[in-house]
Amino acid sequence: MITVPIKDFVPEQNAEGYYLVKWKDVKTGSNHKEYIDYIFADITGVMSVKHWPPLSEADYRFSVGDIVKAKVAVIEYNGAPQAKILKIKPVDNPEDIDMSKIVPAAPIPPKEMYDEIYATAEKIVDEDIRKLVLTVLERNYEKLQYWPAAKAYHHSIRSGLLYHTLRMLRAAMGLCDVYETANRDYVCAGVILHDMEKIREMNSSLYGVVDEYTREGMLLGHIVMGVKAIAKLGEELGMPEEKSLILQHLVLSHHYYPEYGSPKKPMMIEGEIVHHVDNLDANIYDMDLALRNAKPGSFTAGVPTLDRRRLYKREDQK
Amino acid sequence: MITVPIKDFVPEQNAEGYYLVKWKDVKTGSNHKEYIDYIFADITGVMSVKHWPPLSEADYRFSVGDIVKAKVAVIEYNGAPQAKILKIKPVDNPEDIDMSKIVPAAPIPPKEMYDEIYATAEKIVDEDIRKLVLTVLERNYEKLQYWPAAKAYHHSIRSGLLYHTLRMLRAAMGLCDVYETANRDYVCAGVILHDMEKIREMNSSLYGVVDEYTREGMLLGHIVMGVKAIAKLGEELGMPEEKSLILQHLVLSHHYYPEYGSPKKPMMIEGEIVHHVDNLDANIYDMDLALRNAKPGSFTAGVPTLDRRRLYKREDQK
Amino acid sequence: MITVPIKDFVPEQNAEGYYLVKWKDVKTGSNHKEYIDYIFADITGVMSVKHWPPLSEADYRFSVGDIVKAKVAVIEYNGAPQAKILKIKPVDNPEDIDMSKIVPAAPIPPKEMYDEIYATAEKIVDEDIRKLVLTVLERNYEKLQYWPAAKAYHHSIRSGLLYHTLRMLRAAMGLCDVYETANRDYVCAGVILHDMEKIREMNSSLYGVVDEYTREGMLLGHIVMGVKAIAKLGEELGMPEEKSLILQHLVLSHHYYPEYGSPKKPMMIEGEIVHHVDNLDANIYDMDLALRNAKPGSFTAGVPTLDRRRLYKREDQK
Amino acid sequence: MITVPIKDFVPEQNAEGYYLVKWKDVKTGSNHKEYIDYIFADITGVMSVKHWPPLSEADYRFSVGDIVKAKVAVIEYNGAPQAKILKIKPVDNPEDIDMSKIVPAAPIPPKEMYDEIYATAEKIVDEDIRKLVLTVLERNYEKLQYWPAAKAYHHSIRSGLLYHTLRMLRAAMGLCDVYETANRDYVCAGVILHDMEKIREMNSSLYGVVDEYTREGMLLGHIVMGVKAIAKLGEELGMPEEKSLILQHLVLSHHYYPEYGSPKKPMMIEGEIVHHVDNLDANIYDMDLALRNAKPGSFTAGVPTLDRRRLYKREDQK
Amino acid sequence: MITVPIKDFVPEQNAEGYYLVKWKDVKTGSNHKEYIDYIFADITGVMSVKHWPPLSEADYRFSVGDIVKAKVAVIEYNGAPQAKILKIKPVDNPEDIDMSKIVPAAPIPPKEMYDEIYATAEKIVDEDIRKLVLTVLERNYEKLQYWPAAKAYHHSIRSGLLYHTLRMLRAAMGLCDVYETANRDYVCAGVILHDMEKIREMNSSLYGVVDEYTREGMLLGHIVMGVKAIAKLGEELGMPEEKSLILQHLVLSHHYYPEYGSPKKPMMIEGEIVHHVDNLDANIYDMDLALRNAKPGSFTAGVPTLDRRRLYKREDQK
Amino acid sequence: MITVPIKDFVPEQNAEGYYLVKWKDVKTGSNHKEYIDYIFADITGVMSVKHWPPLSEADYRFSVGDIVKAKVAVIEYNGAPQAKILKIKPVDNPEDIDMSKIVPAAPIPPKEMYDEIYATAEKIVDEDIRKLVLTVLERNYEKLQYWPAAKAYHHSIRSGLLYHTLRMLRAAMGLCDVYETANRDYVCAGVILHDMEKIREMNSSLYGVVDEYTREGMLLGHIVMGVKAIAKLGEELGMPEEKSLILQHLVLSHHYYPEYGSPKKPMMIEGEIVHHVDNLDANIYDMDLALRNAKPGSFTAGVPTLDRRRLYKREDQK
Repeated sequence: MITVPIKDFVPEQNAEGYYLVKWKDVKTGSNHKEYIDYIFADITGVMSVKHWPPLSEADYRFSVGDIVKAKVAVIEYNGAPQAKILKIKPVDNPEDIDMSKIVPAAPIPPKEMYDEIYATAEKIVDEDIRKLVLTVLERNYEKLQYWPAAKAYHHSIRSGLLYHTLRMLRAAMGLCDVYETANRDYVCAGVILHDMEKIREMNSSLYGVVDEYTREGMLLGHIVMGVKAIAKLGEELGMPEEKSLILQHLVLSHHYYPEYGSPKKPMMIEGEIVHHVDNLDANIYDMDLALRNAKPGSFTAGVPTLDRRRLYKREDQK
Repeated sequence: MITVPIKDFVPEQNAEGYYLVKWKDVKTGSNHKEYIDYIFADITGVMSVKHWPPLSEADYRFSVGDIVKAKVAVIEYNGAPQAKILKIKPVDNPEDIDMSKIVPAAPIPPKEMYDEIYATAEKIVDEDIRKLVLTVLERNYEKLQYWPAAKAYHHSIRSGLLYHTLRMLRAAMGLCDVYETANRDYVCAGVILHDMEKIREMNSSLYGVVDEYTREGMLLGHIVMGVKAIAKLGEELGMPEEKSLILQHLVLSHHYYPEYGSPKKPMMIEGEIVHHVDNLDANIYDMDLALRNAKPGSFTAGVPTLDRRRLYKREDQK
Repeated sequence: MITVPIKDFVPEQNAEGYYLVKWKDVKTGSNHKEYIDYIFADITGVMSVKHWPPLSEADYRFSVGDIVKAKVAVIEYNGAPQAKILKIKPVDNPEDIDMSKIVPAAPIPPKEMYDEIYATAEKIVDEDIRKLVLTVLERNYEKLQYWPAAKAYHHSIRSGLLYHTLRMLRAAMGLCDVYETANRDYVCAGVILHDMEKIREMNSSLYGVVDEYTREGMLLGHIVMGVKAIAKLGEELGMPEEKSLILQHLVLSHHYYPEYGSPKKPMMIEGEIVHHVDNLDANIYDMDLALRNAKPGSFTAGVPTLDRRRLYKREDQK
Repeated sequence: MITVPIKDFVPEQNAEGYYLVKWKDVKTGSNHKEYIDYIFADITGVMSVKHWPPLSEADYRFSVGDIVKAKVAVIEYNGAPQAKILKIKPVDNPEDIDMSKIVPAAPIPPKEMYDEIYATAEKIVDEDIRKLVLTVLERNYEKLQYWPAAKAYHHSIRSGLLYHTLRMLRAAMGLCDVYETANRDYVCAGVILHDMEKIREMNSSLYGVVDEYTREGMLLGHIVMGVKAIAKLGEELGMPEEKSLILQHLVLSHHYYPEYGSPKKPMMIEGEIVHHVDNLDANIYDMDLALRNAKPGSFTAGVPTLDRRRLYKREDQK
Repeated sequence: MITVPIKDFVPEQNAEGYYLVKWKDVKTGSNHKEYIDYIFADITGVMSVKHWPPLSEADYRFSVGDIVKAKVAVIEYNGAPQAKILKIKPVDNPEDIDMSKIVPAAPIPPKEMYDEIYATAEKIVDEDIRKLVLTVLERNYEKLQYWPAAKAYHHSIRSGLLYHTLRMLRAAMGLCDVYETANRDYVCAGVILHDMEKIREMNSSLYGVVDEYTREGMLLGHIVMGVKAIAKLGEELGMPEEKSLILQHLVLSHHYYPEYGSPKKPMMIEGEIVHHVDNLDANIYDMDLALRNAKPGSFTAGVPTLDRRRLYKREDQK
Repeated sequence: MITVPIKDFVPEQNAEGYYLVKWKDVKTGSNHKEYIDYIFADITGVMSVKHWPPLSEADYRFSVGDIVKAKVAVIEYNGAPQAKILKIKPVDNPEDIDMSKIVPAAPIPPKEMYDEIYATAEKIVDEDIRKLVLTVLERNYEKLQYWPAAKAYHHSIRSGLLYHTLRMLRAAMGLCDVYETANRDYVCAGVILHDMEKIREMNSSLYGVVDEYTREGMLLGHIVMGVKAIAKLGEELGMPEEKSLILQHLVLSHHYYPEYGSPKKPMMIEGEIVHHVDNLDANIYDMDLALRNAKPGSFTAGVPTLDRRRLYKREDQK
C-alpha cells in the first residue's frame, strides 16, 4: 500500500495510508451519540479526522502517539478539508513502515548517536564519574532510542533527546579544548545527565510523541528529579559525596535562571559550559527549523520559542 | 562571677564575663605578628575585641558560635569603645551559665515546643504520613533543640527553627478549621518538614549561631535537600509513591516564587496554606522585633528584611 | 413550570424556564433590522440565544443580571446548539423561583453570614472602632445580602462578598490566637472593611451579577474609595484621628503590591494578617472551584487566576 | 555681624554667623555625659558641629530646620575640619538675615510665584473648578510661601513646591495651545492640586527644611491624601460629582506607574499632560543642578535621582 | 462615478468605487486553482474581498497600499458580508479621487506642515546645525509628504510622520520658553531628526500604508539608522564632531528605555525634552483616536497601545 | 634597581621601584596647600601614596595609567600602611622594566595572539568579508597590542581585548564544526569585530589601564560605534550592502538583551554563536580569577560581576 501524504488529500476523494495520531478526543454529537475526534499527522502536515458512529469497542483503542493504518474519505468543511474514517486498524508490522515519512526524527540513527555518546563517556578519566555515567546510559538504553527532548518545544522529535545530547556533547568537548581550567569529566557527565530524567518527566510513544507529563514530572520537574536520581545512584555505586554533589549541582543549575527552573546558578566553570551549550543548541535547533522553509533574502515570522524574534535568511543561504 | 553586660563596658575599665563569639578572624599586624580579631556579643550588644600577641596555641581554639569566659580591658578607639583580651578561657560548666543573658533564644523552652509539635504530628490520621513525620522529628531531636531557622534573617536565634515551626503549625491547624477541603494530615506534615533540612544546610553551634553553610547547603539548598530526604525516607519506610511525591512537592513549592527558590508553585490547597503561614510567620517575627524598641506613636527605620518598610507603633502599643 | 436546565437543551426541541441574562447586545442583521443577542445561563451551563425581529418595545427591557422567564426553540448552528426566543417575560414572583438552580451562590445563607460577622464585630473592645464597623455593616445591610466579591474573578457569585469576608474573618481571628501581639480589634475591622467599597465600585443585579464598574470605581478603585469612606465616616462619628488613619491604612495596604493597587505595604502586623488571609482565601476559593470537577489522580488545566498553575487532585480526594 | 561661610572655615580659627541646623542628635560620650551632635549648613557647604557639655536646658532648644546664630571654634579631626560650639543663640530678627546666603531657595520670590499661579487659576472658565482651586490656594497661602517640594529629592529648597508648580503650570498651559482637545481648566487644576498635600505629608521649617513625614503622610502618602482633600472640599463647595471625581483622578494618576504610587494610570488627556510636565520638570531641575558645577566639555558623576545617569555639559555651555 | 462607502455595502447588491488594498494574499482553493484574497478599506471600514478564478496576469498586479477602482458583488458569508470582484482596474487619474474618503490622513495639508517645520528650522541659530537639519528636510521632501509615522501604531496615517513631527515641534518650542537652560537649536534639531529614518526603516505606498519593514529596518531599526545617517551627513557637511555626536545622541536616546530601543538615556536636558514630547504626542494621538467615537460619560474599551487603559470621556466632551 | 613589591612595604622603612599610577587626584590640605593623592599598584597589591608640598610643576605631570619610578617612605596611618613620596620620575627606558611584575597582562604575548587571529581571518572564504576584517585588524594593529577589554570588569588587563577575542574565536570556530548551518565567515568576522570600537570608546594607557571613557564612548557606546564603523568601512571598500548590514547586525545584537545595550536580538545563527561565546568567555574569565586564590574544598565570596554568585573550588582543584 502506498501512503497518500496528508498534504495531497483532495476533497471528494478517498485516501489511505499510515498516519500518526497527534491528538484524540471522544465527544458527543448533537444526536447524543459518541464520535471520536482525531488529528492525524505525517511529516507533510496535519488533518482533522472524525470517526462517526456507529463505533465498535475496538475503535476506541488508539492513543495519542500511535501510528494507525487508515482509509478516509476527504470532504470540504467550512472551506477547509476534513476527513472521516472509513477503516482504521493498528499497524501489523511496524518495521515495514517507512517511519521517516510519518514522524519527524533526528537526522542521525539513534544507535549511532548512542554509540558516540557512550564512547565519549568511556573516556571519562575519573572512575567514579565514568561508572555512574555509563550506568545511566545503559539503564536508559531502550528509551533513549526514541525519546524526544520535549513535548512541544525544541527537539520534540523522535530521538530528539539523544540528538540534543550529542550535539551539546560535541560542542562542550570542543569548548574544553579552549578553556583548559574546565574539568572534562564533569562537563561530559553534566551534558549527558542534564536532561536524562525527561524520560520519567513525561510519557513518549515509540514514535517520540509526548501525550502528557507524569505525576512526578508535574509535581517536581525533570531538574529536581535529576538531582534525586544522581543522589540515589551515587549512593548505590559508592561514589564519594563531593563528586555526587557536584553532578547534582550541574543538573540543578543548568537552566541558570530561577524563573526557568534552576534554584541555583552554576558555581563552577563546568556548569557555566553545560548551561551555555544547552541554551545554544536549543536556540540553533529552533532557528534552523524556522529558516528551513523561508525564502532567501527574507525574514521569517516571529518565532514563539525565541521571544518572537523574526529571523533573516541570507540571499545566498540554502 | 557576675558578667558585665556589653552595653555597660566603660573605657579605661576592665570587664569580665561570659560572651558569645560572633565573628573571628586571624590577622597580621604592621609588626608582622598575628593577632585575633573578634566580635563578642551578648543580648545587650556587640563589641570589637582584639587578642594581641603574644598568643599561645590554645588562644586560637575558639570558633564562631562558642561561648567564652573572658576578661578584657576597654579602651576608646576612634571615638568608639573597643576591648583587648586580658584572659580568655573555655566555659567549664555550660549549665551554670544563664544562657538567656548571652544568646537570644525562642521564648518557649525547646523541649516544650518539641512536645507540642510531636503531639500534633501524632494526630495525623494517615499512617504512612504519620510514621514518616514522627521519624523525622525523632531523628532530628537533638539538633532541633537549639538549631536556629536562619543564619541572619528571621528566627536566627537559639531554637528558632522549632519556634518558627511551632507557630506555623498552630496557625496552619487553625486555618484547616476554616478551610475544610484542606487535608489536615498533609498540612501538618508540610509545615513540620518544610525547613527541616536547614539542619544540614548550615552548621549551628550549640548556641544557635550559624558560621557557614555546608557544601551541600551551598550547592543544592535546603529545599531541594528536603525533597531528596523525603524521597529517601519514604522509600525506606515503604510509603506509597503518591504520598511521598505530595510531601516532596509541599517542600519544593513552599517558597512559592522561583526567585526565592521554588521551581514549582503549590499545586494543591495544602501547599498554599504552608506557604502563607511560612511567609506570615517570618514577617510577623521581623515586625515584632523591629517594633520592640520603637517609641509608641512613631515609625521605625526601614526594615531590611521587609523591603525596607518602616513600621508604625500605635500610641497605645506596648 | 419546570425549568429545563441548559445542559439538557436538545436541538430541534423547545425548552422553557427561568434563566439568567449573562450578556446582552443589540445588533443589526444583514436585513438591516435589529435583533437581540443574549447569553443565557443557569448553574448547568450557558447558551447563545437570539431574539429575532419583529421586536416590540417591551422586548428590549431586560438587562444583564436579570432573570427572565423564557420559552426558546433550540437549533444546531455550526455544530453547536443555539436557541431563538419564542416568548420572554419578566419574573412575576421571584420568591417562587429556586434561585439555587439558576445563579451560583455562596453555600451559606446571607443572613446567617451577616449575623456571624456582625456578632464578631460586636466583640470589638475599642468603642470607636466597634461603632464604625457596626455602622458600616448596618448601612450596607441590603446590598451585602447579594453582592458578589468580583465581576469575573474569585467569589463572583451571589453573596460572594459576604462569604469572602466571613471566611477571612474566621481565618484572621484564628491567627490572632497564635500571634498575640496583633490587635484583634484592628484585624477584625480591617477584614470587614477591606473590600466594602466594592459595593460602590461596581453595579450588581439582585442575583450577584456585575455588568459594569461605576464611574468612581473606574477612576479611583475600591481601595482608594475605601480610604475615603472611612475618613468620612470617622469624622462623622468623631473617631480619634489615629484610629481612623490606621483603618484607612489597613484598607489601603491590603493588596500589598503596588502593581495590584496598594501604594503602601502594611506598616503593622494587623495589615500583614489582613493581606495574607485575603490572598489565601481568594486562592483557596479558585482552587476548590477548579478541583471540583477534576478526576482524582489527575491534573486540572492551567487556572488563569492562579498564574496558569495546573492543580493536582489526589487519588483519595472527593 | 558678618557670617563666615562654611566653606571658609579654617582649622585653629573661630568663626561666627547664621547657620541652618540640618541634622541634630543628642548622644552620650564616653564620660557618660550628653553632648549634641549637629550638622550645620549654609549654601556653601555643611559642617559637623559638636556642642560639648556642660549644657544648659536652653542649649537643647534648637530643632532641625532652625536657623541659629553661633560662634564656633574650628579644629581638624581625622583630617577633616570639625567645629565645637562656643556660643549658640536663636535668631532675634529673622528679617535682618540674608536668607539667600543660608538656605537654598527658588530663584523667584514666593509672592510673585503665588500671584502668577493664582492669576492663571482665575482664568479657569468652569466656575466649580475655579472656585475649588482658588480656595485651595487661599487656604494654603501661608505655607506655600516656603514649603519645599520634597524632603531630599528635586526642589527640596525653600519655596520649592511653588516653584515646581509654577514651572509645570507654564509648561502645561503651553502644551494646551498645541493639544486643543485637552481641557485647559482640568489641566490647570490638575497641576495646581497635584502635590498640594505635600504640605500635610511632611513637616517643613520656615526655611524649607523637612525633618520628618507626618503620621498621615507615612500611612497614606500625599497622593491618596490629595484625593481625600478634593473629595471633601468638593462636597463642601457643592461641586458636581463628575468634576470632583475627575480632579481626584488627576491627582491619583499623576505618578503614572503603580510602583511610584499611582494605582491608576491617567484615563484622560489632561492626566497625561499633568504627568509628563511633572516628570519633565523634576528631571530638568535635577539636571540643571548637576550640571551647574560641571566643567564644559565633561561628564558629571552619575546622578542618583536620574537612574545614575551621567550628564554631558557642552563645550559652549555656561 | 460615486464611490459606495464600505460601511454601506449591502448583501445581494453590487457596489463600485475606489478602495485601498490593505492586505493581499494569493491562495489555492479546494479546486486547486489560485484566487486572490484581499482586504479592501476606506475611511468607513474594511471588507474581505475575493477575486475568484479565472484570473488574468493583469489581475495579479495590485499590491498592498495601492488604490484600485473596483466593482464588487456583495454576499453574506457565515453571517458577515463579503464581496467578490466583478471588475478591478488601476486608478487612471489619482488626482481626480477624493483621497480623504479613502485613506486616513493628517488633518493639515502636508505642504503646510512641511513649511512650518522648515521655517522653524531656519531659525536655528547655529549654522552647522541649521545646515544639517535643512539638508535633511530637503533631501526627504518628497517622501515626507505622505510617509506615515508607523506601520500599525500611533500616526499610522498618510503624512503621519510630518504631523507627529510638527506637533512635537510646537510642544517642544513652547517648553523651551519655560526651560531656559535648554538649547533651542538642539531641541529643534532633535525633534526634526528623531524619526526621520522611518523613511528608510519601512516602505510606504503613496497613500501612507506600510507593507513591510526594509532589510536595514529589521536588522538595525530607525534609531541606529538615524545615528548613522547623522554621522555621515555631518562628515559630508564638515560639522564639528561634538555637534554631530550630540545630535546622534539625541536620536539614540529618544526612546529612553533600553527595552524600547534606546541603549542610552538622555544625558542632557535637550534629550529629556525630545523624549517627553515624543511620548506625550504619541499617547495623546492614541487617546484622541480612542475617544473620538466614545459616548460622553462612558469609558472606552482597553486601548492596546496604552497598556490596555480604558479612557473616560467627560459628559460635556464632544 | 630592584623594585620592592607593594605587598612587602613595611612601615617605618623606605621602598623604591616601578609602580603603576592607578588613580590620581589633586587635593587641598587644611593648610590650604595642594598635595597629590595617588594610588600606586603592581601585581602584588595597591597602596595609598601622598605627594606632599612643596610641589614643582613637573610633579604634576603623571597621569592614571602611567608607570613611574618612585622612592617612598612608608608609615602607618590609622592602622593601615600609607606612603609618602620622596622622589618620583618618569620611566627612562620602558623596555628595561619587567612589566609582568607591575601590570596584569594576558598570559600570551600580544604579537602571538594577533597573528593567530589574523591567520584565522585570512581563511575567510568570502572576499568582501575577509578584506574588511583584515583591514580592521591592520588599522588597529598598534592599539590592539595593549588595549584592555574593559575599564573595570572582565579582561581589564593589558592586551585583554586581544585575549578575549582570541579565546572567543577559538571557541566559536569549534562550534562551527558542530553547527554546520552556521556560516564560518560571518562567525569569524562577528567575533573579531564585536568589541573593536572599545579602542575608541575609552582611553587606555600603554599599560592597559583605562582612565576614562571618551565623549563618543559615553554618548553612543562601543556597540553603536561598531555599527557606524562597519557601515563606513564597508562603503569605503565597496562591500555589497547585505554583507555590511549583516556584520553591523552581528555587532549590534551581540549583547543580546536591550538592558545590556543591544536594541536587537540576533536574527541569525551566527549572531547567536557570537553572543554565547562572548558571554561564556567573560564569565569563565571572571570565574578563573575568583577561584585562583580560593582554598580547595571551599567557596569564594560572592563575585560582583557574576550576580554575586559564590563559586566552589573542588578539593582536587589547583
